[in-house]
Amino acid sequence: MKESVLNIQDWLKSNDYTACIVPQADPHHSEYIEDYYKLRGFISGFTGSAGTLVVTRNKAALFTDSRYHIQASIQLKGSGIELFKCGLPDVPTYSEWIAEQAKCCKVAANAFLFSAKEWENLTKKVSMVDECGFECVWNDRPALCASKIFIHDEKFSGESVKSKLQRVRQIMERSSADIALACNLDDIAWLLNIRGGDVAYNPVVRSYVAVTPTQCILFVDSNKIDASVQAYFHANNIEVADYGDIGAYIEKNSEKTVLFDKESINYGLYKRVKNCKGKVNQPLYISRLRAVKNKVEIEGYHSSMIKDGIVWVKFYKWFNECISSDVTITEMAVMNKLRELKSAQEGFVDESFGTIAGYAEHGAIGHYAATCETDSKIEHKGFLVIDTGTHYLNGTTDTTRTLVCGELTDDERRDYTLVLKGHIALGTAIFPKGTKGSQLDILARQYLWQSGMNYGHGTGHGVGHLLNVHEGYAWLRPSENNIGYEPWLTMTDEPGIYREGKYGIRIENTVLVTPYKKTDFGEFLTFEHLTIAPYAMDAIDITMLTQDEKNFINTYNKNMYDTLSPYLTNDEREFLKTIAYEI
Amino acid sequence: MKESVLNIQDWLKSNDYTACIVPQADPHHSEYIEDYYKLRGFISGFTGSAGTLVVTRNKAALFTDSRYHIQASIQLKGSGIELFKCGLPDVPTYSEWIAEQAKCCKVAANAFLFSAKEWENLTKKVSMVDECGFECVWNDRPALCASKIFIHDEKFSGESVKSKLQRVRQIMERSSADIALACNLDDIAWLLNIRGGDVAYNPVVRSYVAVTPTQCILFVDSNKIDASVQAYFHANNIEVADYGDIGAYIEKNSEKTVLFDKESINYGLYKRVKNCKGKVNQPLYISRLRAVKNKVEIEGYHSSMIKDGIVWVKFYKWFNECISSDVTITEMAVMNKLRELKSAQEGFVDESFGTIAGYAEHGAIGHYAATCETDSKIEHKGFLVIDTGTHYLNGTTDTTRTLVCGELTDDERRDYTLVLKGHIALGTAIFPKGTKGSQLDILARQYLWQSGMNYGHGTGHGVGHLLNVHEGYAWLRPSENNIGYEPWLTMTDEPGIYREGKYGIRIENTVLVTPYKKTDFGEFLTFEHLTIAPYAMDAIDITMLTQDEKNFINTYNKNMYDTLSPYLTNDEREFLKTIAYEI
Repeated sequence: MKESVLNIQDWLKSNDYTACIVPQADPHHSEYIEDYYKLRGFISGFTGSAGTLVVTRNKAALFTDSRYHIQASIQLKGSGIELFKCGLPDVPTYSEWIAEQAKCCKVAANAFLFSAKEWENLTKKVSMVDECGFECVWNDRPALCASKIFIHDEKFSGESVKSKLQRVRQIMERSSADIALACNLDDIAWLLNIRGGDVAYNPVVRSYVAVTPTQCILFVDSNKIDASVQAYFHANNIEVADYGDIGAYIEKNSEKTVLFDKESINYGLYKRVKNCKGKVNQPLYISRLRAVKNKVEIEGYHSSMIKDGIVWVKFYKWFNECISSDVTITEMAVMNKLRELKSAQEGFVDESFGTIAGYAEHGAIGHYAATCETDSKIEHKGFLVIDTGTHYLNGTTDTTRTLVCGELTDDERRDYTLVLKGHIALGTAIFPKGTKGSQLDILARQYLWQSGMNYGHGTGHGVGHLLNVHEGYAWLRPSENNIGYEPWLTMTDEPGIYREGKYGIRIENTVLVTPYKKTDFGEFLTFEHLTIAPYAMDAIDITMLTQDEKNFINTYNKNMYDTLSPYLTNDEREFLKTIAYEI
Repeated sequence: MKESVLNIQDWLKSNDYTACIVPQADPHHSEYIEDYYKLRGFISGFTGSAGTLVVTRNKAALFTDSRYHIQASIQLKGSGIELFKCGLPDVPTYSEWIAEQAKCCKVAANAFLFSAKEWENLTKKVSMVDECGFECVWNDRPALCASKIFIHDEKFSGESVKSKLQRVRQIMERSSADIALACNLDDIAWLLNIRGGDVAYNPVVRSYVAVTPTQCILFVDSNKIDASVQAYFHANNIEVADYGDIGAYIEKNSEKTVLFDKESINYGLYKRVKNCKGKVNQPLYISRLRAVKNKVEIEGYHSSMIKDGIVWVKFYKWFNECISSDVTITEMAVMNKLRELKSAQEGFVDESFGTIAGYAEHGAIGHYAATCETDSKIEHKGFLVIDTGTHYLNGTTDTTRTLVCGELTDDERRDYTLVLKGHIALGTAIFPKGTKGSQLDILARQYLWQSGMNYGHGTGHGVGHLLNVHEGYAWLRPSENNIGYEPWLTMTDEPGIYREGKYGIRIENTVLVTPYKKTDFGEFLTFEHLTIAPYAMDAIDITMLTQDEKNFINTYNKNMYDTLSPYLTNDEREFLKTIAYEI
C-alpha cells in the first residue's frame, strides 16, 4: 500500500474513524481546480478530473466513471488501491461501498468539498463528520494561487456593480432575506465585474460574497488585490474580508434570514446556513441574471465571433495549403497554429479551453488532448475534428468544425450530413418561451436516431461572457434541468457522431436565444447563430438536404462572407469564396 | 351562506378546528369517482371534476383551475362561497389561503382522500389532522356502488394471476419486502384479472391488495363478489377481506417491511406504512408491469382496432351521406350514431370515455360534451372534431379524427396540415430505448411552433387494456415523468390546434412502442400505429407535405383498405377508396 494511504490509515485509527472520503473538488464545485485541491491525485497517483478516493482502516478504493476506467487502472497499478469502475453493472457507488465496509461507519471528510445535496445523501448511509485532519498527510502541499484580480470594465460587461447589486437586493426583498450569499465563482465574478487567473481557462476569483441591504462583502485572499482593485472596491462600497472568514460570518448572523442557492453552496457553509433563523433556497438566483446577456455583452460576442471568424478563415487557408503542398502537419501543429492566430487578435485573453484537435480515430475520443506521445500526422483522407474557443475581453467563443483532410468514404459523408441536419434543425428551431433544453435536444438527434446512431454527450451548454465556457445554467441535453429558455441566453448547438477506432464528427456553433414573434399562442423564441466559421461543404451529401436546410447553409455562408470580408486580404476573400460556396 | 356550509362551520367550532378541506377525490386518485365521494359537490353545488373546497369558521372558498373558472362562478353564485381562480396572477393556493386565515391552523381532512405528497406539502403550512367527522353533514349521502366484479378471462389478458403475482413477488424479493401493497385500481384489476363497473368508462373495482410471499389479500366490499368470482378467487388463492380493513391490516403488520408506490398511495394508508419497521417506495412498480403489453393483449388491440375501424368507415359513410343529402345532423346525433355502431361489434363492453363531438367553435373547447342546450347542427362547412374510444373485451381504443363538413378556409387547411405533420413526425419517430415522453413531445409540436402556434394539452397518454383509457404510466407531454420508453407500451399520438370561437383540430392514433433495430449505438424503438381510421384527406394541403409524409399517408391508407375490406360491404369498400386515396 502507498505510504500516503498508510499515513491516512494511521490517522483514522488514532482519531477513531472508520473511513475518510477524498474527492477531487474545490469548495465551489469548479470545473477546473487549483493544484492545492488535488489531494486525491497526491494520495492515489490518479490524475483524472473525476473520481473519489475512499480510505478505510485497512483498504483504499477509487471510484471513477467510464471516461477514466483505462487511465485509472494504469495509474493505480501497484498502489494497493482498488479500482471501482462506476457505471458498469453491479459496481457500487462509493457511499454504498463504505456502508458495506462496516455498520455504523464514522466517516471523516472536508464538508467544504461536497455539495449540500451530496453530503445529505451520504448521511442517509453513513455517519458523516466534518473533519479534515487527514489532509495533513500532504507535506509539500502546493500553495493556493495568488494571481491578481483584474477589473472587467463596464464597457465590456455592460452593467455596473451598483446596478447588479441592486437587482440582487430586489430578489432579497422579495424573499424577505437579510443576507444574500454567493458561492458560485462565475456568479461572483459577474456580480462584481472582476476576473482572476487562478486556474487555466476559467477567469474567476476564489471567493464568496455576502450582500446585505447596505453592504457587499467579498471574502477573498487579500494578496490578490492590488491598489487599483482596492480603489475600485472602495469606489463601489465593496468591503473585503478574509476568504476563510465566511463560515464565522454566517455563524455571527444566525439571527438573520439568508438567501442562498443550494445548487452552488458547499456543505461546509450549508450546515451553518441551516442554523440561521431564516433561510431561503432559490436555485441559480444570480446565475440566471448572469446567463441573460445584456446589449453590450451581445455586441461583445458579435465582435469576438468576427475575430474568431477571421482566425478560422486564416486557419483553413493555412491548413488547405499545407495539405495541398504536402507539408506534414500534426494535431499539435494545428493547436499551435490556432493559438498563434487567436493571440494576434485584439483583446485576446486566453483560450476558453484546451483546443481539441483529433484526427481520424482521435476525433472519436470524447475530450482528446493531443500530447507528444499521441500526436497524429494528418493524412490526405478522413476528418479532423477541431473544438476550440477563445476568451476576448469582450466575449467568449466556442466552436467545433470537422475538416475534410482529403478523400472521404460514403459513411463519413452520410454521417457528416446527418450531424449537420441535426445541427440545423436545432439551430433553426422556433419554440415558446419557457421551453427547456431537455425538450429541444431531440431536434439535433432525430436524423441520427433514424439511422440507428446517437452521441453520448449533451447537445449544448450555456456560454459565459469572459467566464467559464461551460456556463452551467441552461443546459441543452436529455436530462431535465427545469430552466425555461428566455431571450438573450447564449448556448452551444453541437451534435456529433463518434465511431470508435475510425472517426469522429462534431459541428458546433454558439447561438443566442432571441425573440421570434408574439402570437395568440404566446411568445415564441428562436436562435441567432453567433459563430462565424466555414462548414465542411465538401463533406455534405447535398441530396440528403431539404431546400430549407440548403437555404440555411447558403444564408449562413453569405452572411459569413459579408461580415468577414472587410477584415480579410484579397487572397483570403477569394479563398473563403471557394470553401463557403452556394448549394 | 349555504346550510351545508353552516353545518360544517358549527362542527368546526364544536370540535375546535380552524378549518376543513374537502377535495373531490376518492382514496385511489381515480379520474372518475363514485357519487359517494362527491361531498364537495354536495356542499358547494359546484360539479366540476377538479376543485377543492375549504371551509373555515366564518368563510368558505373554492379553488379550481382554468377549465372551470366560468362554470364555478355560475354554480357558486349566491352560495356565499368565495371562488379562487387558480392559475391567474396572485391567486393563492388553498394551502396558502388557509395559512393566511389564521396562525397555527388546526385543519381537519380525510387523509384517505389526499395523496401522500399532497398531505405532506400541506403539513409544511398548517397543522393537519386526519379527521372527517364533518362529512356527517351529508345526510342523504349516496351509497357506495356495489356492481359485481367480473373475471377478465386469461384468453383476453394473456397472463394468469399466478404468473402476475409471481412477478410482483420477484420485485418484493429484490427489495426484501414482506408485503407488497397495491392501491391503484388499474394495478389491482390488472393483477387479479378482474374488472368492475362502479363508475362509467373505468372498469375497475374499488379495492386494495396486499401480496405476501404466500398470500394475496383483496380488500373489497364482499357484496361485489358472486359465486363464480368467489370460486375464481378460491382457485387462485386470493383471500378476501373487507375494504375498510386495510388500515388495520397494515397496523397489525408494523413489524414487517412494506413495498409500496408513493405515487398511488393515499395519506391515510401512508401514515400507517410509515410506522412499519421497513418500507420501500418503488414508484409505479406494478403500473410498469401493466403498461408493457403482452402478445395476447396486443392481438386484442389489433382486433379491437379492426372493429373500431369498421365503425369509422360505416360512420364516415353515414356522415357523408347525411351531409350530401342535406339531412340535418347534430353533435349528439353523431355521438349516438357512433355508440350504436360500436355496440353492434362483438365483445363491446362500453365506450372508453364520453365521445367528444365538437362542431366548429365547439371543437376548440378542451373537453366539450354536447348537451341538449349546446347541441350544434352540423353545417356544410368547417370541421367536426370527434374524439371517441371503445372498451372491447380484448382491448381499448382511443381515436380522434377531424372531419371535413364542407368548405374549408385556407387557415383551416393549413392548420390541419400542420397538425397532421406533427402527428406523423411523432408517429414515425425512431428513438433509443429509454427515451422519455418529455423528449418526444416536441416532434408533434415543431411545425405548429414554426407558425407561432401551440396546444395546451399533452401529446399523448398510455392506453389501458380494458382499463382506464388514460393509463397513467408513460405520459407523452412536455413535463418530465422520468419513465423511459420500452417495447410494447401503448400510447396516443394526438396533437391539435384550438382557435377559440372558431374551430378545433385534433388527430389521434393509439400507437404501440415496438423494437426497431439494435446497432452499435444501442437498441432503437419506433411506433406501430394501431388505430385504423381515415384521415381527412380533403383537408390536407399536399404542397406542405414532404415525400416521406406522403409515403406515410399512402402506406397507412393501403394498410387500412387491406385490413378492413374483408369486413366491409361492397359499397363500403368503394366508399373507403374514395375517402382514403393515394396522394
